[in-house]
Amino acid sequence: MPHYTPPVRDTRFVLEHVVGLDRYADQTGFDTATPDVVEAVLEEGGRFVAEVLFPLNLSGDQQGCTRHPDGSVTTPDGFKEAYRQFVESGWATLGNHPDYGGQGMPHVVSTAFQEYMISANMAFAMYPGLTHGAIAALTAKGSPEQKATYLPKLVSGEWGGTMNLTEPQCGTDLGLIRTRAEPQADGSYAITGTKIFISSGEHDLTENIIHLVLAKTPGAPDSSKGISLFVVPKVLVEADGSLGARNAVSCGSIEHKMGIHANSTCVMNYDGATGWLVGEEMKGLAAMFIMMNAARLGVGLQGLGVAETAYQNGVAYARDRRQGRALTGAKEPAEKADPLFVHPDIRRMLMEAKALTEGLRALCLWGALQVDLEHRGDAEAADLIGLLTPVIKGFGTDMGYKIATDMQQVYGGHGYIAEWGMEQYVRDARIAMIYEGTNGVQAMDLVGRKLAQNGGRAIQRFMTLVTRKLAEVSPDDGVKAYGEQLKAALGDLQASTMWFLANGMTNPDHVGAGAVPYMHLTGLVAVGLMWLEMANAAARLKAGGDADPFLDAKLVTARFYGERLLPLTGALRRQIEGGADAVMALPPEMFAAA
Amino acid sequence: MPHYTPPVRDTRFVLEHVVGLDRYADQTGFDTATPDVVEAVLEEGGRFVAEVLFPLNLSGDQQGCTRHPDGSVTTPDGFKEAYRQFVESGWATLGNHPDYGGQGMPHVVSTAFQEYMISANMAFAMYPGLTHGAIAALTAKGSPEQKATYLPKLVSGEWGGTMNLTEPQCGTDLGLIRTRAEPQADGSYAITGTKIFISSGEHDLTENIIHLVLAKTPGAPDSSKGISLFVVPKVLVEADGSLGARNAVSCGSIEHKMGIHANSTCVMNYDGATGWLVGEEMKGLAAMFIMMNAARLGVGLQGLGVAETAYQNGVAYARDRRQGRALTGAKEPAEKADPLFVHPDIRRMLMEAKALTEGLRALCLWGALQVDLEHRGDAEAADLIGLLTPVIKGFGTDMGYKIATDMQQVYGGHGYIAEWGMEQYVRDARIAMIYEGTNGVQAMDLVGRKLAQNGGRAIQRFMTLVTRKLAEVSPDDGVKAYGEQLKAALGDLQASTMWFLANGMTNPDHVGAGAVPYMHLTGLVAVGLMWLEMANAAARLKAGGDADPFLDAKLVTARFYGERLLPLTGALRRQIEGGADAVMALPPEMFAAA
Repeated sequence: MPHYTPPVRDTRFVLEHVVGLDRYADQTGFDTATPDVVEAVLEEGGRFVAEVLFPLNLSGDQQGCTRHPDGSVTTPDGFKEAYRQFVESGWATLGNHPDYGGQGMPHVVSTAFQEYMISANMAFAMYPGLTHGAIAALTAKGSPEQKATYLPKLVSGEWGGTMNLTEPQCGTDLGLIRTRAEPQADGSYAITGTKIFISSGEHDLTENIIHLVLAKTPGAPDSSKGISLFVVPKVLVEADGSLGARNAVSCGSIEHKMGIHANSTCVMNYDGATGWLVGEEMKGLAAMFIMMNAARLGVGLQGLGVAETAYQNGVAYARDRRQGRALTGAKEPAEKADPLFVHPDIRRMLMEAKALTEGLRALCLWGALQVDLEHRGDAEAADLIGLLTPVIKGFGTDMGYKIATDMQQVYGGHGYIAEWGMEQYVRDARIAMIYEGTNGVQAMDLVGRKLAQNGGRAIQRFMTLVTRKLAEVSPDDGVKAYGEQLKAALGDLQASTMWFLANGMTNPDHVGAGAVPYMHLTGLVAVGLMWLEMANAAARLKAGGDADPFLDAKLVTARFYGERLLPLTGALRRQIEGGADAVMALPPEMFAAA
Repeated sequence: MPHYTPPVRDTRFVLEHVVGLDRYADQTGFDTATPDVVEAVLEEGGRFVAEVLFPLNLSGDQQGCTRHPDGSVTTPDGFKEAYRQFVESGWATLGNHPDYGGQGMPHVVSTAFQEYMISANMAFAMYPGLTHGAIAALTAKGSPEQKATYLPKLVSGEWGGTMNLTEPQCGTDLGLIRTRAEPQADGSYAITGTKIFISSGEHDLTENIIHLVLAKTPGAPDSSKGISLFVVPKVLVEADGSLGARNAVSCGSIEHKMGIHANSTCVMNYDGATGWLVGEEMKGLAAMFIMMNAARLGVGLQGLGVAETAYQNGVAYARDRRQGRALTGAKEPAEKADPLFVHPDIRRMLMEAKALTEGLRALCLWGALQVDLEHRGDAEAADLIGLLTPVIKGFGTDMGYKIATDMQQVYGGHGYIAEWGMEQYVRDARIAMIYEGTNGVQAMDLVGRKLAQNGGRAIQRFMTLVTRKLAEVSPDDGVKAYGEQLKAALGDLQASTMWFLANGMTNPDHVGAGAVPYMHLTGLVAVGLMWLEMANAAARLKAGGDADPFLDAKLVTARFYGERLLPLTGALRRQIEGGADAVMALPPEMFAAA
């Protein structure tokens, strides 16, 4: 059976030395996040997820959700009680606005807790995760009445929320939506259509579920410009806030899927369900992107969260399991074999997992800080997080899957067997590369929108930031050597950006064909920046007399990142510079068997 | 529902222009493999697997195998009937020796058929696949009586075979085996112990199952030097060849695993079962490696086989599914959206899949030819296939998993849903990276054994072969440009080999830490050699007036391989040259949460 220990020590190091939480101590929200409070969130939150949510992870996967003939859905054994504790302990309210009963913690603090919750039980974490998307959309675009009706109950966790975008014929291309919204005399709309892949669409955790639904009003243009957003509660809410009649929305079936079995992924049927317009008619896409951007950062965090648990269990197995002898001679000759840990290739996989999980943790928390700063009006932060949101989502989840796969590999044959729990991490991590926009869509958002906006201001700001940090590199020899490696990687990013600039105008396919390599290149540099910050801090603390071996580990891991992961940027640059010609040359009929 | 079409056209091209089958037409075995016969094997064999085995692939995954209270196991619906047809049509006997009823086809021809069978239904293909391992071991090491008793029935497919190596405490490190073999007065042995992860261990396809079992005789050394190989039939065979009493071997349970659900992976209990020594006592490891090397090439072929089906379905979906518009302007403006196929990132994944599946097909078939030549006494072929067996297994299955994952990605959310069939390919492909020696073990076999043997003769022969082929490059400009890219990749392989030579003596961990990158580097060069051969042939045929667009596709795909995949060799070389220092520096307690 797997285990999970919240990595509180590492989170604390990042909050202190990469995020620099104390620098913002006088700002609203941050002022309540005193060191004591943050420590309590990490320790108590970590304990809650490890003790209450993690024990339900494997059993939840094996049991899955059940749809009953009346359309109701029950979550796996233990989920309802765990959710009750989650709400009663107040974990649902952590980062939400105090106006609606939230604790108003900075996003960076609630993100730290979110990571732990995902690590403990990704499928469980998706229920409150989707609620957060609904809260974000209603907060930004809801009418005062809608806010008063829905937000307090969503913030407390008494009600759940969902996002209803996808339809059978319509995934990424939201212009293809067929769900219709007919205006009614009372100002409401009758919503009719079928939505698929609706995470947390129906379940028994909350007494009501507030669906946010994209649909088209009569006469709306047949493109994404014709989409409107509606709020459609499962149970209608009376004027006094009490629950009224059941709305005409129901779960038609639960999808059979590769993983996240404990989250109910539903086909939702809207049969003239009563809904209300959120924001302006035909401005649904903008409202949807409010949910989407928050959701994408959350999905990037899923890559990290699942990878962390897989990594911890890879380490534990490598220490326990004995097979073969060290290449340099038996390390434990009294035993019949050495632990797997002595084998360089096992260590290579563990070090990659360590370098990437710790680096992604720093990037996710630093990114969450940029969200906080953006909300407080910081234009540079807004540019940086706008640029890096698709990178955190796309690169973060690609790496999460790679780490989960590698950690499964450490287990050998046992990794393939369900009881050991490792194959679940691979199956769960896999969805994060697909939903909220596939990673290819993230890459196109990066190179097609984010690079071009405001004359390339965001990427310039990012590259300037890395350059500035490189100039502040620690005098420590090891960190200086790492700085040179990061500088070379930044050079590859600069060259690739220039290549897009020079070639994208003549043929936009040149940019499209390099999109995913560019997303990975940017991700490697962004995580590389985090390792520079961590190595700088570790070298400074050591020079100041701190003998904590945790700091030595940071320096070794930065070196590993520079030697083993940054070299990939050169290959990615060459792939990008290959352009689109060979990629696009063949007609469809020349693919596959003929 | 997925589809599968055997890629006969591509197989034929490889057999003709890479393998050069006609050059061996006068050799035994090859003389029966006339062009007509080979064509019939590809066409008829392809039709059989597509019509009979493929329709059982998805249903077999969903139903799985069932163990009954009496220890018997039933395979999924339709498997027994399909296996009966497989045997009756003679497909079981294709590559086996005529002395025992085989058709004596060259290994390269039976490998072509094996690929199709795996593509159609990997879990099914494992039943005869394991039988082949048993045939190989008994042919090489069995006594004349054992051969007469078992081989005819195994060759015909009437009986199945298995390999019993792994035990709960013992995977790669076979010195840890605890299963005991006590000599009996009649010359037989009583075998007692528990084996796990036994593929095809118990099933209803054949009336008998011949287990080949590693065990230790009394007083044998407590290491891999103390292992002996035994043949242990499920049902004892009487002197007249008829079936006698049930032996004391039984299936204790079926493992719950990530994929290959339709193959029964069993815990096998030996309770004083009657077995007979195969070959010499305490020489079991050598006998086991006869099975192992054949099995490893077969597993490499699984990487290709599953990837091919995933690829075909990725192409089909990209052609059918409409989402969004081409970056260069709507391609089908009359439709509401263009097919996925217009998007460069979709095309990038399809082209990678095309370049790798066609390249691996060439490598697997060319490798199978080397096996044929080795059996006929060719020392260079023996060196080449010895070197490349771990590469075909390790690189081939890593790429198979990558392709299956990418093709699932083409499907977006639908790829995660079981009914579409794509997630099964990922789950099935995953095991091939683990069993018959994890890919890390393959890499150690490559760098620790195969590189060093005979003063590095095999790698020298391989690099000389690539150099010689580069000298024969076509005058076609595109092929010449590709040749330059391959030359650079070969340079990375040479430099990495020299780096191991210079640094491995001082610290063998330097070699271990670079083992997997080196395996991938060798794999990229080996597949790169195949693309050189294919591009040369295509250019030559085109210059001769052949206007088949298949040849243009080969040239474009070679260019893609050079621009998109060969650049990785530079990064791999830098990883290798990073050495072991950062990889091995941290003590166990500095990993994971603290």
